Amino acid sequence: MQALPLHAEDGYDLWLRYRPLPAADARAWQAAASQLVAADATPTQAAALAELNRGLEGLLGTAPARVSTVRRDGALVLGTPASSPLVAGLRLDAATLGREGYLIRSVRIDGHAATVIAGNDDIGVLYGVFAFLRRMLEGRASTGIDLRDAPRVQLRLLDHWDNLDRSVERGYAGQSLWDWHKLPGHLDPRYTDYARANASLGINGTVLNNVNAKALSLTAPWLEKAAALADVMRPYGIRVYLSARFSAPIEIGGLDTADPLDPAVRRWWRDKADEIYRLIPDFGGFLVKANSEGQPGPQDYGRSHADGANLLAAAVAPHGGIVMWRAFVYSHEQPDDRAKQAYSEFVPLDGSFARNVIVQVKNGAIDFQPREPFHPLFGAMPKTPLMMEFQLTKEYLGFATHLAYLGTLYEETLRADTHVQGEGSTVLRVVDGSLHGHGLTGMAGVANIGSDRNWSGSIFDQANWYAFGRLAWNPAQSARDIAAEWVRMTFTADPRFVAPVVDMMMASHEAVVDYMTPLGLHHLMARGHHYGPAPWDAGSERADWDPVYYHRADARGIGFDRTATGSNAVAQYAAPLAAGFGDVHRVPEKYLLWFHHVPWDFRLASGDTLWNELAHRYTRGVDEVRAMRATWAGLSAHVDAERHRQVANFLAIQQREAQWWRDASLAYWQSLNRLPLPAGEVPPPHPLSWYQSLSFPFAPGH
Amino acid sequence: MQALPLHAEDGYDLWLRYRPLPAADARAWQAAASQLVAADATPTQAAALAELNRGLEGLLGTAPARVSTVRRDGALVLGTPASSPLVAGLRLDAATLGREGYLIRSVRIDGHAATVIAGNDDIGVLYGVFAFLRRMLEGRASTGIDLRDAPRVQLRLLDHWDNLDRSVERGYAGQSLWDWHKLPGHLDPRYTDYARANASLGINGTVLNNVNAKALSLTAPWLEKAAALADVMRPYGIRVYLSARFSAPIEIGGLDTADPLDPAVRRWWRDKADEIYRLIPDFGGFLVKANSEGQPGPQDYGRSHADGANLLAAAVAPHGGIVMWRAFVYSHEQPDDRAKQAYSEFVPLDGSFARNVIVQVKNGAIDFQPREPFHPLFGAMPKTPLMMEFQLTKEYLGFATHLAYLGTLYEETLRADTHVQGEGSTVLRVVDGSLHGHGLTGMAGVANIGSDRNWSGSIFDQANWYAFGRLAWNPAQSARDIAAEWVRMTFTADPRFVAPVVDMMMASHEAVVDYMTPLGLHHLMARGHHYGPAPWDAGSERADWDPVYYHRADARGIGFDRTATGSNAVAQYAAPLAAGFGDVHRVPEKYLLWFHHVPWDFRLASGDTLWNELAHRYTRGVDEVRAMRATWAGLSAHVDAERHRQVANFLAIQQREAQWWRDASLAYWQSLNRLPLPAGEVPPPHPLSWYQSLSFPFAPGH
Repeated sequence: MQALPLHAEDGYDLWLRYRPLPAADARAWQAAASQLVAADATPTQAAALAELNRGLEGLLGTAPARVSTVRRDGALVLGTPASSPLVAGLRLDAATLGREGYLIRSVRIDGHAATVIAGNDDIGVLYGVFAFLRRMLEGRASTGIDLRDAPRVQLRLLDHWDNLDRSVERGYAGQSLWDWHKLPGHLDPRYTDYARANASLGINGTVLNNVNAKALSLTAPWLEKAAALADVMRPYGIRVYLSARFSAPIEIGGLDTADPLDPAVRRWWRDKADEIYRLIPDFGGFLVKANSEGQPGPQDYGRSHADGANLLAAAVAPHGGIVMWRAFVYSHEQPDDRAKQAYSEFVPLDGSFARNVIVQVKNGAIDFQPREPFHPLFGAMPKTPLMMEFQLTKEYLGFATHLAYLGTLYEETLRADTHVQGEGSTVLRVVDGSLHGHGLTGMAGVANIGSDRNWSGSIFDQANWYAFGRLAWNPAQSARDIAAEWVRMTFTADPRFVAPVVDMMMASHEAVVDYMTPLGLHHLMARGHHYGPAPWDAGSERADWDPVYYHRADARGIGFDRTATGSNAVAQYAAPLAAGFGDVHRVPEKYLLWFHHVPWDFRLASGDTLWNELAHRYTRGVDEVRAMRATWAGLSAHVDAERHRQVANFLAIQQREAQWWRDASLAYWQSLNRLPLPAGEVPPPHPLSWYQSLSFPFAPGH
Repeated sequence: MQALPLHAEDGYDLWLRYRPLPAADARAWQAAASQLVAADATPTQAAALAELNRGLEGLLGTAPARVSTVRRDGALVLGTPASSPLVAGLRLDAATLGREGYLIRSVRIDGHAATVIAGNDDIGVLYGVFAFLRRMLEGRASTGIDLRDAPRVQLRLLDHWDNLDRSVERGYAGQSLWDWHKLPGHLDPRYTDYARANASLGINGTVLNNVNAKALSLTAPWLEKAAALADVMRPYGIRVYLSARFSAPIEIGGLDTADPLDPAVRRWWRDKADEIYRLIPDFGGFLVKANSEGQPGPQDYGRSHADGANLLAAAVAPHGGIVMWRAFVYSHEQPDDRAKQAYSEFVPLDGSFARNVIVQVKNGAIDFQPREPFHPLFGAMPKTPLMMEFQLTKEYLGFATHLAYLGTLYEETLRADTHVQGEGSTVLRVVDGSLHGHGLTGMAGVANIGSDRNWSGSIFDQANWYAFGRLAWNPAQSARDIAAEWVRMTFTADPRFVAPVVDMMMASHEAVVDYMTPLGLHHLMARGHHYGPAPWDAGSERADWDPVYYHRADARGIGFDRTATGSNAVAQYAAPLAAGFGDVHRVPEKYLLWFHHVPWDFRLASGDTLWNELAHRYTRGVDEVRAMRATWAGLSAHVDAERHRQVANFLAIQQREAQWWRDASLAYWQSLNRLPLPAGEVPPPHPLSWYQSLSFPFAPGH
């Protein structure tokens, strides 16, 4: 009997598994990695060298000898022109790489074939090492290499909604990674692996604490904890940021106001920033959620969001810090369509933010729904840098157990055309700064990372972390290419596995949209924890927390009229787009019920009625999950048993829950429209009251 | 450069590491394990075979071939007389082994040397396999083996104080292992490793949920989750139990009462038990915390604890289940010394409990303090089976970062002499049933296990799980022997490491007592989370939640008078013991301030005053931790870097916190007695107000 390692494949190694390459590949790469010339004088140089050795040792069985000069074919040469005379001697065209870019090139040095991995700064070299190892893992050629790459976005950040008690708001992967109680005295080795994984994608910042922030995190003991984490991250090019509570000057500063124009408040924030930078010299800056969902903010004092952002920006500016000010705001008092409020509040402020402020905008105007049209703020604030906020954790997409690859969602948003400067004015060009000529650019992902052994709660949720990181580096990459890359690194490069799994991933997000919120429906989940369907929910303390506010279904029709006859949210988009969205016959069907209230017997492009099409979409979503299960079941020969079983179990859970979403939704719509299901559709097995009776007081993430 | 496995030694493997034996040992054992004769027809047989193969593969490099007959020297033969004709043929004297015992013996079979691992039941064989592997790990001889062992205690249980939201009350090792949201659809492989680890110690039951229970855990969806866990545990001889909320008939049953004498209530519990046993045929039974700290119970209806316990006992009796009824009660209305209340309530009920009820008593009368005299209930209820409740999780002993081996605490309690039937009437003999002739016996440990990779929050806390399990099997074992066994299995059998580490462990609990609560002081920790010193705390909603209630210090003296001039708690002990405890000159000094209020200038055996001795004890505790740090620092050659660093970091934290306990305590006592510190004692570096100002709103476990 062959005893296998107990937990060799529990998902901990992510896409950095470095398992032995197939023999032919290994031979080729061994020839190309016979020696290693690299410095380790700085922490980042040491990290690059260690990663390369770890990778080569794993992939090839042995790491090459480290030498000081090239004496034979096959040397790997790492460095910057400053750190390596060999690199300097190659006179590489590194000018356009910037600080973080890298190049990898097959060269000749002293008559020998060699491969150089170079950058203008140590961090570029580290990124190059990860790119080099990715190339090996993907099974590509070891010779004739001529790669160069540099990030198109400046701030590539994970936002952790991690609380000080180690719970994670909307987290489905265990507790927070940050073991605050043991910090700064103990640094879990996992912090380093977190930094490695992020650096492998080019992520260069991490906001440690929840945007629903506690002032306590800005007190000395907690800053020391954050500083200890910053020390771990620094060699990997990752800066630490903190979410700041706007009322901190009152709560921990002893002031009686947090008015952004009050001199004592301004002084308090300046002193606080000085204190932080003494502990964390490369502190990134603040993320702020203000005057939203009960958080304090400048409006408490009759000031604007710009006043608030500029207050903090002035405090960190002398240290080179920035402020990310969230545009996710909607007012308790405001009766207007919630989808419109961020635009209404922020567009008038365009041009009034300090130079080191960037406004952080969610991909859509409601809240990370399975599908939303892009947020109308993109393109609408030409004088203000805007950064993208995507959600990696699947708050509205089935938590950790549903397979939903979000690369396609991110791609759909980034490639959407705002038309604000004519065709081609994509969201991507807002985000990378090219549309309006901004140098300060950014993309943030609400992290899906926790203490679970596999980091993200499921193996496939690792792909969303991966896709986010790769898109933050270059938002023009294709979701399909990224999926293929991830599959090869995470499982195997065998095309018999890669092709069906990539297809499955590419179809997965649409499947969730189908079984949860087809045709532009949105916000139909249960209150509070957001687990499972509850389109019937009503009577919250705020109308716009209720599904009935969003679907507006009755006996005659369904959907939210956001045209001129309704809330006129369409008018927040550029004219050509508004015209299309506002026309019930031209709007893309995927946004139909987002923008329009239509009768149940409205005819769709298919010729079928809305009601029949709706029913078919729900069923199509369930069928897609069933097909995913079958695909996965047939791939067991390519995957270790532990990861295969976990994915298979989760797909079974997903199928059950997809069916539940379909059945509960149809039962509810039928209770309103009294229409029969179209022929062939199986009726829900339970009466509506049964679905309404389900309750899940301990659903995670809440 | 030699790349090492990333997380080879993160503590996950516990004491079941199965790393290669030293070469000489390996050769000897290879000769004794050349073949394997074993059945795998039942899940438990399969588990025993898999464990043996895993162990031999790890320890020796290869697992032996499995054969059906013995053809050469060195066969290992596993089985029961029923499962193995070879075992049956040996006619072993297995009668006294009972169902769970085992024997391991060097024998000859068909002229060949062989080793037999046998029991009367599959579970005995599994326990034998673990004992065999332990023998190998400990570096003992492979020949001339003649071992037999059987448990002295029937119920050997872990109590998980795990909540349905995955938080763990008083848990310092991450979240609950039980990922309720993904159950029953996904069974984490870790559940199996939990079962393996427990079976290796002989633990045969697990209470899944917190004694502060939710009724919801008894509803169908949650019972299905529990049943899924029971299916994992069953092959390892582990039964699942549930904590039951006494008011469940109201909360989930729709009744308007939970009165134990109400026929509808009785029927509800019978039906509920029937439902549970349909899902979990070997369900162990219920654990109940009633009428204590706000929990509902029979007294809400004017009924006794016996009425309550017998209600549930009747429900599970037809299925062979039992009820563990906790004696940890103290009343909101009762002004009497809290230490006396459990005795006062339970002793009058002796003889009135049903036959399948066992009363679960904490080791001491207050609440798992660093040191308490044994609970006076032990020995005081001769007609009632009493089981021991120890706390493994270090609620009052420094959480996960303080090294405190609790084997010595458990040993001190178990070996305490109650004197109720003359000398030798030890607590141990109450627990193993021999003193009063009970067949139903048990020992429960409040688990220190969570989702942390190393299970217990620290490497050394694994030793407390280990020691508890070994003592539950045989309460007469020595704490030192168990420590040595654990060290050899967890680290190395090298005596240069074992000796100093065992010494360190043996002294560690006393060190914590010294720096937290010397000379019989108790309950001096901060309110709520219990992290850190707060002897000044007063003004809680209940006086007996406050440190000042327990130490009663003022300008003249300190301590709780529990003699006849005070609460007279001493009278709850047998006469000879009461006389000793009650005499300020005869009471063991470690219990002095537990039983007596004495002046600051009281002279101790050392000749020194109480005040001076108190100061010296605090300092001695801090010094001991400093010595532990130095010892550990010198042992790095014997331990992998990751575990060594974690322990070193935690010892540094412990030293800092030990100093904090000493300084804060001395500053407070000085504020009352105005006495100078004895010569040579360093004054606290901060004023008392500084220690009082510290607050830790996010300390774990609360």
